[in-house]
Amino acid sequence: MTQLQGIAASSGIAIAKVYRLEAPDLSYSKTDVEQPEQEVKRLHDALEISKQELEKIKEHTKASLGDEHAEIFSAHLLVLSDPELIKPIEDKIKTDNVNAEAALDETANMFIDMFKGMDNEYMRERAADIQDVTKRVMAHLLNVTFPDPALINEEVVIVADDLTPSDTAQLNKQYVKGFTTDIGGRTSHSAIMARSLEIPAVVGTKEVTSQADKDVMIIVDGIDGDVIINPSSDEITKYEQKQQEFEKKKQEWAKLKDEATVTSEGEHVELAANIGTPEDVEGVLNNGGEGVGLYRTEFLYMGKNQLPTEEEQYDAYSSVLKQMGDKPVVVRTLDIGGDKELDYLDLPKEMNPFLGYRAIRLCLERDDIFRVQLRALLRASVHGNLKIMFPMIATLEEFREAKAILEEEKQKLIEEGQDVAESFEIGMMVEIPATAVIARQFAKEVDFFSIGTNDLIQYTMAADRMNEQVSYLYQPYNPAILNLVNNVIEAAHAEGKWAGMCGEMAGDEIAIPILLGLGLDEFSMSATSILPARTQIKDLSKKELASFKDEILSMGTSEEVVQFVKEKTNQS
Amino acid sequence: MTQLQGIAASSGIAIAKVYRLEAPDLSYSKTDVEQPEQEVKRLHDALEISKQELEKIKEHTKASLGDEHAEIFSAHLLVLSDPELIKPIEDKIKTDNVNAEAALDETANMFIDMFKGMDNEYMRERAADIQDVTKRVMAHLLNVTFPDPALINEEVVIVADDLTPSDTAQLNKQYVKGFTTDIGGRTSHSAIMARSLEIPAVVGTKEVTSQADKDVMIIVDGIDGDVIINPSSDEITKYEQKQQEFEKKKQEWAKLKDEATVTSEGEHVELAANIGTPEDVEGVLNNGGEGVGLYRTEFLYMGKNQLPTEEEQYDAYSSVLKQMGDKPVVVRTLDIGGDKELDYLDLPKEMNPFLGYRAIRLCLERDDIFRVQLRALLRASVHGNLKIMFPMIATLEEFREAKAILEEEKQKLIEEGQDVAESFEIGMMVEIPATAVIARQFAKEVDFFSIGTNDLIQYTMAADRMNEQVSYLYQPYNPAILNLVNNVIEAAHAEGKWAGMCGEMAGDEIAIPILLGLGLDEFSMSATSILPARTQIKDLSKKELASFKDEILSMGTSEEVVQFVKEKTNQS
Repeated sequence: MTQLQGIAASSGIAIAKVYRLEAPDLSYSKTDVEQPEQEVKRLHDALEISKQELEKIKEHTKASLGDEHAEIFSAHLLVLSDPELIKPIEDKIKTDNVNAEAALDETANMFIDMFKGMDNEYMRERAADIQDVTKRVMAHLLNVTFPDPALINEEVVIVADDLTPSDTAQLNKQYVKGFTTDIGGRTSHSAIMARSLEIPAVVGTKEVTSQADKDVMIIVDGIDGDVIINPSSDEITKYEQKQQEFEKKKQEWAKLKDEATVTSEGEHVELAANIGTPEDVEGVLNNGGEGVGLYRTEFLYMGKNQLPTEEEQYDAYSSVLKQMGDKPVVVRTLDIGGDKELDYLDLPKEMNPFLGYRAIRLCLERDDIFRVQLRALLRASVHGNLKIMFPMIATLEEFREAKAILEEEKQKLIEEGQDVAESFEIGMMVEIPATAVIARQFAKEVDFFSIGTNDLIQYTMAADRMNEQVSYLYQPYNPAILNLVNNVIEAAHAEGKWAGMCGEMAGDEIAIPILLGLGLDEFSMSATSILPARTQIKDLSKKELASFKDEILSMGTSEEVVQFVKEKTNQS
Repeated sequence: MTQLQGIAASSGIAIAKVYRLEAPDLSYSKTDVEQPEQEVKRLHDALEISKQELEKIKEHTKASLGDEHAEIFSAHLLVLSDPELIKPIEDKIKTDNVNAEAALDETANMFIDMFKGMDNEYMRERAADIQDVTKRVMAHLLNVTFPDPALINEEVVIVADDLTPSDTAQLNKQYVKGFTTDIGGRTSHSAIMARSLEIPAVVGTKEVTSQADKDVMIIVDGIDGDVIINPSSDEITKYEQKQQEFEKKKQEWAKLKDEATVTSEGEHVELAANIGTPEDVEGVLNNGGEGVGLYRTEFLYMGKNQLPTEEEQYDAYSSVLKQMGDKPVVVRTLDIGGDKELDYLDLPKEMNPFLGYRAIRLCLERDDIFRVQLRALLRASVHGNLKIMFPMIATLEEFREAKAILEEEKQKLIEEGQDVAESFEIGMMVEIPATAVIARQFAKEVDFFSIGTNDLIQYTMAADRMNEQVSYLYQPYNPAILNLVNNVIEAAHAEGKWAGMCGEMAGDEIAIPILLGLGLDEFSMSATSILPARTQIKDLSKKELASFKDEILSMGTSEEVVQFVKEKTNQS
């Protein structure tokens, strides 16, 4: 029996035999060629077949997981059509008179090394994309079979160095009970997909592929991040019990699906979901979401060669609003720039993109783009309970300007004879420290706040949340963060407005009791977190938690806060 | 008569005839060479002479302006020795069989374009460095004379596209009355040097070189940023008056050199200076500084190939402390990383360096470097009134850890029998929003705060202060910033500690009345701003300004604050 510790990437317990998903042998000889044109043709044939396959996987993913997850393959397809990658390969074939395999491998590796050399998670993910795509093309050049997890037809746990997004997309939940990998983190594509598919997963074990032989039994504990190879029968029994408990918990959660979210004294708070596409709404409703607290509209703009039209946007927004009925849907206007680039907008390269030209800053200058989105939203407003929210507001002037543009477009639509909802709330993200500090001034002019903790924490602590070297400073429970959150909530309530939160923190079991005590009105999280949160809140007394407020806010460190909360709420 | 508007880069009025500082003709023919070794030799000869010249200019600058300004030439000298630049030039000569001129030009341009393409001021300055150095080398290859402003022997105003740092270093104040350029900004090297030399300057006029012919009269108004070419005699008279008024003002300022800084009701506040090297102390004392509020120790570490030794550091710190006598000297421990890289430390490339691994974050991990500095400081502590300050503190744990390391080194030194001051204050920079928000918690453990506004503003507004695209968000008077500053001052006073400020804002004439009203104890600024600030404060009533506090802190926008302050203090 061997036990490994990794990163718990997707909850649940899997017990089955090992299926090793191994990369095919892609070794090749570098040869001189006499007819480079023929090699260029071979390259393009391989690219073409790879594109067709990726289109198929993309469709498969779209159907099983929704648009958001299919986006990654749009990105891969763009890589295959990217002249900045393909042209250098062709040039290499012609200039060096080498075979397509060598030209592909050497060129791709140059790009991969370049991206990997940039020490941050985002660029490393881009390197992974190119690697993933290149392998497929290489397999076709060499005429070797590329692994196809869709063929698995017995219960297994997949063991791999890493799972590519295309691997994950092909997983059949009926047979694939879980997976575990050597590398990867909680935010890698495969981890995110595993959570959506609800397949237990442990990633980043560093050595599972060197320890787990084909067909031996393996346990993947996606709750605590443990992997047990060759477990004893006692271990298997123990984990079967843990699995049953987890299933029981899930059943308990499911019972609350159609219940309101109430504290132990019966006070209601709203649990909403963060979504990226209309396809995500189904998951929200299945998980008992009381609303959409954050609809990220970026996916409409990504993985394409041009801006989405007003009609395309209208269709997407209307679809979400109609599906949600009278439940609130908070739509965040476009937040691109920063780590989210759009090639076709040709944004400037920046030294500190997180402190740069993005979101509302870009939308106010490029109001040609902004107005199209606002028109689509305004037209969709008649189909449900729309609330519009502006991202990355730093100053009152920005909020006023954004709101004025929205009003202008509303008037224009009315003059054009179009239907627009008579009234809808207009709010803003609080994700820049400045707005949290003077929330009182903003509260007079907005209809609501939604606190975006991912950014608020990184700016307040001055620590890039993607940078591992300073990750110890990404502290959701730091008293400075809690004081800012409290300031926002108090400011909203003083003006009779509501305050929500749509960052990772809103679904966190340590944060929930604190936020409840501070009086947060709405918690927006990933759909699968809603039922566990509702279950947790049922047993919490808001009144009792509120009585700890002053003590928590005057603490000095994150550590103290966590200890205190665990003690008061009996969390181990 | 032609009037141009530029950026006021250095105060004062200059009236004299135009001296056009023009680049020499550096055009060349690209030729094939048969003996590439000879071209490589020519290249190295030109590099060698250029190095010798730059060493001389560096010495000249050091003597006239001090170490800090001479640093730029250390950087230039490093460029000339950088194998990443020189090797590709040699390779090009050998591979392409071209002359040294072509290889130099094409290779340098490749690097320059690369840096310029990165859309931020810092990288553009690096491109300017390479350009500056390359021109000198090219001139030697072509045997043409490189311009030498040191030869000027009559009163002139220099007109140039841009002034290179080496041009500026050679300016003789006796003859060069002012300068004006097409390009550049307030933070370009030449602008900073102009202020140190007290030569009036207007930069960024965009077109002064195309408008101002040789020998015509020109007026440079470095107070308001105006340039007048071919002025009428009325205009000349008008500006001569303005010049006299400015001189009178300077004389008024000078009278206060040995006076204490007091408000109209006689209350004392401390005006201190920011320095970079021991040579800067003379300027502090000449300008009536009551202390050093920020001694940036980075210059000891920059422009070298290795870390400074304990002795080197001890000498520098002792020199500053001795020169300042019993006046306080606040030394900030090493703040590298971010935009300040040290090649020899091989720090990781980061996606958002301003949110990355820098200052105390680096010092706590690399305590081998940190302890050497602390030992040098502790040993120097017996020579004056030392206060030690840690930069970029985000959490209480970091402050405690830094202080504990300092205590450890103190004990070690005492055990070794070394002299260490019995007590000295230990404080921290407040430049990360988190620390400003919970300043109350920090105030219990620190001896003082010094607010670093440059960083505090950029993090609080989430806007890179080097990025022109979001420069409108760099708002010192934003009510959010003022609320944080107020919070820090109140927290300090509640615990009987003092609060200072060492960012640009402390010397700003709009900010000074506000900060006085908030109760700031110490204002640290560039030495040349001290006397104007003392003059301004003499006429301000702290009590009256304090009465505006609540009104200012509840304002919504920077604009409102500025209007209000101007009105109340009769500034136009």
